Amino acid sequence: MPIHALINGVAGDRLTIGDRGLMYGDGLFETIAVRDGRPCLWRSHVERLQAGARRLAIPCPSPEILYRECVRLASGCAACVVKLVLTRGAGGRGYAPPPSPEPTRILLRYPWPEHPPEWTQSGVAAIWCRTALGEQPLLAGIKHLNRLEQVLARAEWQDPTIAEGLLCDTRGRVIGGTMSNLFVVAGGRLLTPRLDACGILGTVRALTLECAAGLGLEAAETDLAPGDLAAADGVFLTNALIGVWPLGSLGGHSYDLGRLPARLIAEVRRRVHQPVCEETA
Amino acid sequence: MPIHALINGVAGDRLTIGDRGLMYGDGLFETIAVRDGRPCLWRSHVERLQAGARRLAIPCPSPEILYRECVRLASGCAACVVKLVLTRGAGGRGYAPPPSPEPTRILLRYPWPEHPPEWTQSGVAAIWCRTALGEQPLLAGIKHLNRLEQVLARAEWQDPTIAEGLLCDTRGRVIGGTMSNLFVVAGGRLLTPRLDACGILGTVRALTLECAAGLGLEAAETDLAPGDLAAADGVFLTNALIGVWPLGSLGGHSYDLGRLPARLIAEVRRRVHQPVCEETA
Repeated sequence: MPIHALINGVAGDRLTIGDRGLMYGDGLFETIAVRDGRPCLWRSHVERLQAGARRLAIPCPSPEILYRECVRLASGCAACVVKLVLTRGAGGRGYAPPPSPEPTRILLRYPWPEHPPEWTQSGVAAIWCRTALGEQPLLAGIKHLNRLEQVLARAEWQDPTIAEGLLCDTRGRVIGGTMSNLFVVAGGRLLTPRLDACGILGTVRALTLECAAGLGLEAAETDLAPGDLAAADGVFLTNALIGVWPLGSLGGHSYDLGRLPARLIAEVRRRVHQPVCEETA
Repeated sequence: MPIHALINGVAGDRLTIGDRGLMYGDGLFETIAVRDGRPCLWRSHVERLQAGARRLAIPCPSPEILYRECVRLASGCAACVVKLVLTRGAGGRGYAPPPSPEPTRILLRYPWPEHPPEWTQSGVAAIWCRTALGEQPLLAGIKHLNRLEQVLARAEWQDPTIAEGLLCDTRGRVIGGTMSNLFVVAGGRLLTPRLDACGILGTVRALTLECAAGLGLEAAETDLAPGDLAAADGVFLTNALIGVWPLGSLGGHSYDLGRLPARLIAEVRRRVHQPVCEETA
């Protein structure tokens, strides 16, 4: 039997119920694409995890340990997903963090998610969610384990032809999808929501901004309203597993995918699933 | 550390790491005072759990099952705490809730928390936390497992003579303590924060409002600013374990406990730790 999970480096699938990850969502996670047994966008994942751990004051394991365990878990996988969960570890009852936390690291392996192949080329259908994201600058940007808002939003549709739901914050600003970041193409510029009050700073969001800069494409983080998406030349979604999904339709509105920046999208796709073949940490 | 626990009715202390309670904080909890082997404020705890389960669309076990397991776990305890955790159960990767969730119920027993006895009579010292609570009406009031805000707030002080930290929301309205609800006494009236955008509707908060009504004391849920606490005749805190803690000081400001409604506080204290001697569910 292949190992499906490692808990603090030991094969296993059960955790003590006193872990603060379960009690309070007191932790962080990363969802990592794996190709040929190696993680992709490794440095970005580790840096976001470290940033989150600093924010929450959770001691972060070394990148070397995490890389070794990721490769061990993904051994022999042509394509799979490794989810990394880091919690503050076990503790007594009550919110007060233990003075010397012994964090729990969990790596889980999942099969590669299969989506209809035409979604990548012909674009996906998305809807607007009614769920609005609350603003909490102290937790914005990091990928923490308090994800009830995303669960509520994702529960709004069951239609398997709808690939993603888009969310605004409680002030009506567009933030992104339930599981993806969002880019708007308008007037030759690339725009993406500012994520200083809610949302997650995605690894492919950063890659896309980096590729845009490399191609001399003007890009900005800004406030966007739903009307800006209706008026846009095009919209696309990103995350570490899907890479780039062009938006084919949003509610009743259809987009002409020919108006998307093809070179940018090709470059992001070229780089998003390149395995890290050496331990770069 | 829990002495004892039941997971879906079976003694044990380990849970599958795929549980959505760990992955997303996708669940609810109750912290229940136990006296003479029986839970206190049982009906209030069950009703809040059921309200949360409806809000999150998690199937809720019957009160009869929960009561039976609570009493089984608390057997022989003169005074202890039972924490009840209800999650959406195991699921695959991704936010989408399983179409037919099989929820996980966990009951954990903890020792009764010992606080300095003078806190009850002479009042406690509290501080203002810098952490501000985000507004999220979809999750307000219920006792869900997304508690990073409380963890961050509770991490703001280590001084054991500080009993509680008080929190405002991001709009500057007073919400309560990290683990308690708050009442202000001013001009002969009892005031408590409205909790429609954040905060938890506490079982002893409801009991206090009920007792106030029974005593003919005027009470209101309202918006309060920090200045209202400085100007108040008195302030007290409530939760299911502490019952009522008068506020002796807040930051540099001291209160005269003689201006608190003594009959109300005595009545709440008389009722808060009365065990439910029969299965009332």
